[in-house]
Amino acid sequence: MSFFTSRWIDRLEHVAELEPAGLPLGFRAAGVAAGLKPSGLDLGVLVCDRADVVSAARFTTNAWVGAPVIASREADTARLRAIVANSGGSNTGDGQRGLDTARATQRLTAELLGVEVDQVGVASTGVIGTELPREPVMDGVRRAVGALGADAGALARAILTSDSGPKQACLEVRLPGGTVRLSAQAKGAGMISPRFATMFCFVQTDAALSAQTLDLLTSVCVTRSFDRISVDGQLSTSDTVFVQASGSSGVPVEAETENELRLGEAMDVLMRQLALKIVGDGEGARRIGRIVVTGDDGVVEPVARAVADSPLVKTALHGGDPNFGRILQAAGMAYPYRDGFVADLEIEGQLVVSAGEAVVENLRELDPLVAGAEVEYRLTLPGSGGEAEVFFSDLSPEYVVFNSQYTS
Amino acid sequence: MSFFTSRWIDRLEHVAELEPAGLPLGFRAAGVAAGLKPSGLDLGVLVCDRADVVSAARFTTNAWVGAPVIASREADTARLRAIVANSGGSNTGDGQRGLDTARATQRLTAELLGVEVDQVGVASTGVIGTELPREPVMDGVRRAVGALGADAGALARAILTSDSGPKQACLEVRLPGGTVRLSAQAKGAGMISPRFATMFCFVQTDAALSAQTLDLLTSVCVTRSFDRISVDGQLSTSDTVFVQASGSSGVPVEAETENELRLGEAMDVLMRQLALKIVGDGEGARRIGRIVVTGDDGVVEPVARAVADSPLVKTALHGGDPNFGRILQAAGMAYPYRDGFVADLEIEGQLVVSAGEAVVENLRELDPLVAGAEVEYRLTLPGSGGEAEVFFSDLSPEYVVFNSQYTS
Repeated sequence: MSFFTSRWIDRLEHVAELEPAGLPLGFRAAGVAAGLKPSGLDLGVLVCDRADVVSAARFTTNAWVGAPVIASREADTARLRAIVANSGGSNTGDGQRGLDTARATQRLTAELLGVEVDQVGVASTGVIGTELPREPVMDGVRRAVGALGADAGALARAILTSDSGPKQACLEVRLPGGTVRLSAQAKGAGMISPRFATMFCFVQTDAALSAQTLDLLTSVCVTRSFDRISVDGQLSTSDTVFVQASGSSGVPVEAETENELRLGEAMDVLMRQLALKIVGDGEGARRIGRIVVTGDDGVVEPVARAVADSPLVKTALHGGDPNFGRILQAAGMAYPYRDGFVADLEIEGQLVVSAGEAVVENLRELDPLVAGAEVEYRLTLPGSGGEAEVFFSDLSPEYVVFNSQYTS
Repeated sequence: MSFFTSRWIDRLEHVAELEPAGLPLGFRAAGVAAGLKPSGLDLGVLVCDRADVVSAARFTTNAWVGAPVIASREADTARLRAIVANSGGSNTGDGQRGLDTARATQRLTAELLGVEVDQVGVASTGVIGTELPREPVMDGVRRAVGALGADAGALARAILTSDSGPKQACLEVRLPGGTVRLSAQAKGAGMISPRFATMFCFVQTDAALSAQTLDLLTSVCVTRSFDRISVDGQLSTSDTVFVQASGSSGVPVEAETENELRLGEAMDVLMRQLALKIVGDGEGARRIGRIVVTGDDGVVEPVARAVADSPLVKTALHGGDPNFGRILQAAGMAYPYRDGFVADLEIEGQLVVSAGEAVVENLRELDPLVAGAEVEYRLTLPGSGGEAEVFFSDLSPEYVVFNSQYTS
C-alpha cells in the first residue's frame, strides 16, 4: 500500500516511494529498548556522518516546555549532526534535574560520535512531571550508537507512544539536477494521547543545500502540515521537528531554482501526509475532516482553527451527522467583526448554506457526504485574498474514556 | 434544599430565599405548550406591568446569531416590558423568514399587552437551520398572554431543552432602604447540548433604579457569572440575558449607595449560582472545576479560559485524576510570552507545582482532592494585579455519545 493515502495530498510525478525505513546517503540510525517503557523500543539515535551537515528545527510554541526543548533550542539548530529521541518520559516539569539529564544526553552523544555538544538535538515524549531516569538513558545512548546502521525502522518505532504503528517514509526525488532521497520518521498520538498529542518529525535528505534554504523549506512545509492539524486543540510541551541535509548525493539545491521547487514539493507532500496520519491515527478516530476557509486574509485562519477545534463539530463528524449549524456557530465565534458574517458552506462540494441561510430542506440527503473516511467542508466568508485549511480528527467516546483513565 | 448549593457562592446575611417560582411585584408570567416540542411547555411570556420599567440586555458575541437576537438587539433594551421565549427551535439560519417570525412575535405581543413593539424582547432555543413555525408561536403567545399570573414556574419550564429541570430562584433582599425582591429563570443545557450550550437568564426585581444603574449591575454580574463558565468552549448563537426592574417595591436604589451595593451583591450570588447550575447540569457531568489564575492583568483571563476549555483538563477532572501537567500545558499554550512562564499550582489548597517543578512525588496522594463534586485549582503566574476565574464542567463519554447522535 502506498504511503500516500489521502486524496488531499498531490501525487507527484517526480517522487517515487522506496522501502519506508530507508535513509538518504550520509545518515545512520538505531533504536534500542532502554527500559523507559515497560517493554519495547524506547530510545533512538539518528546521526549524519557529514561534518558539513545543515539542519533546521521547529519547536512547540507552548510557553511551558520540556527540558529537551530548552536544551535543543540552545543547540546550533542550523548544523545538527545527531538527534536522540525517547518515548517513555517527556522530561517536562522536573526542573533542574530534568535539564541536567537532557544536557548529559547531549554531552555523552557528542563524545561517542565525535561531534560538538551543540550539534546534538534531543526530544522526549511520554509521561510528564516525573523523572526521566538518567542512567537508563545514558546506557541506551551507548547501545544505540553501537548499533547505528542504514535503517531507520527501529528509530521510528522507538519514538512511538500510543501510536498504532510507525509513521515513516523514504522517497526518491528526481530533481532536474539529479536524484536525491528524502526520508522522515514521525510520531503523533492522535486522539488517544494520554498526556498531550505530542508530535515529532525527523526529516533527512542527501540533497546539498544551504542551511538558509533548508530553513525556508522547513518553514513553508511545517506551516502547511503540522501547523494545520487539530486533534484536540491542545498544544504539547514537546513538539519537535528536526530536518537535516547531508549533501551526500552531490546534487546541489540552490535557492530559487527548479531543484528547490521540486524538493520543496516533495517535502510538502511528505510532511502533509505524515500530519494526516497523525490526525487519523487516534483510537476511536473514524474520520478526518478538512475545513477550508476563504475570505479576508486576517480572518480565515482563526475561523478555520475554531471549526477544527470545536468538540461539537468533531462529535458531529464522528456520528456522520451533516450538522452544518455547528460549523457556522464555531466560525461565527471566531469571526472578529460583530457584523457582516455572511457565509456560504459546501460539504463535499454540495452547497448547504448560501448567504447564511440553509438551502437544504432535508439534511438526511447529505448523510452520504459525511459517511466517508475524509470529509471536506468549504466555508466562504466576505472578502478575498485569504485561504486557510485545517485538518481535524473526529471526537469519539473512546477518546474521552481513554483520557479519563488514571494516567499518572 | 437551598438554591445556593456551591461552596464558591457567598451566603449573604441580607438575602433570604422565597418560593423559587415567585416573582417581584409588578411582574406576571406564563408558560404554555405551543407544539414546538413533541410534548410539554415550550413557550413563555414575561411581562412587567409598569410603564416606567427599566431593563438591560446582553447577547451572545457570536458573529452568527439567531433571528431573535437580531430582533431583540433592535428593540429598546433599556425599557423592555415583555419577553417571549421558546424552546423547540432556535430560529437561527432561516434567513428573512426567521426574522419575519421574530418580528411578528414582537408585534403580536405588543398588541395584546398594549406596549410598544420595541419593548418586546424575544429569545429562542432548540434546533437550528429549520423553520420555527409561525402559527404555533402566534397561537402560543395568545394563550400565554391569557394565562399570565404571579408565578414564573411555567415560564422556567418552557425555556428548557436538555436541562434536567428548571433553574429558578426568588429572593428577598433586605436593603438599608427597604426590602425588595429579586427573581430569575435560567436555562442552560450544560454538557448535553444537542446543538450548542445556549443559555438564557431572565432576571426581575421590584427595586426602583435607573436604567443606567441596572445596566451597570448587569455588566458586573454577567462578567462574574455567565461570562466565566465553560461547558465545551463553544459560544452559542442565541445566548440572551434580560434584566428588568419594575420599581413596584417603592425602594429606591441609587448609584453608589449602600442600597446599590447590597442589591448588586444579591444579583451577583443569584447569577453566579445559576451559572454554576448550568455548568453542573450536563448528563454525564460529574464535577465542577474552578480555575483561579493570578498574575499580570492581561494574561490571567486567556490562561484561565484555556485551562477551562481544555478537553484534556476536562477528561482528567471526569476521571478524578490529579493530572497537573494538563493544567500547566493548557496554561502555557495561552501564555502570550515565550519566556518567563513560571507557575505555582495548588489543587484544593495543596501545593503541587512550585516554580514549574512538581513537588509531589506520588500523585496518588492527591486523589482525594479531586474526588469531590467541586475541585479548585489555583495557578500563580509571574506579575500581579490580575485575577481571573472560570468554572468548567468535566468531559464525559456520555457527552460525546449524546453529541454524536444524529440530531438534525
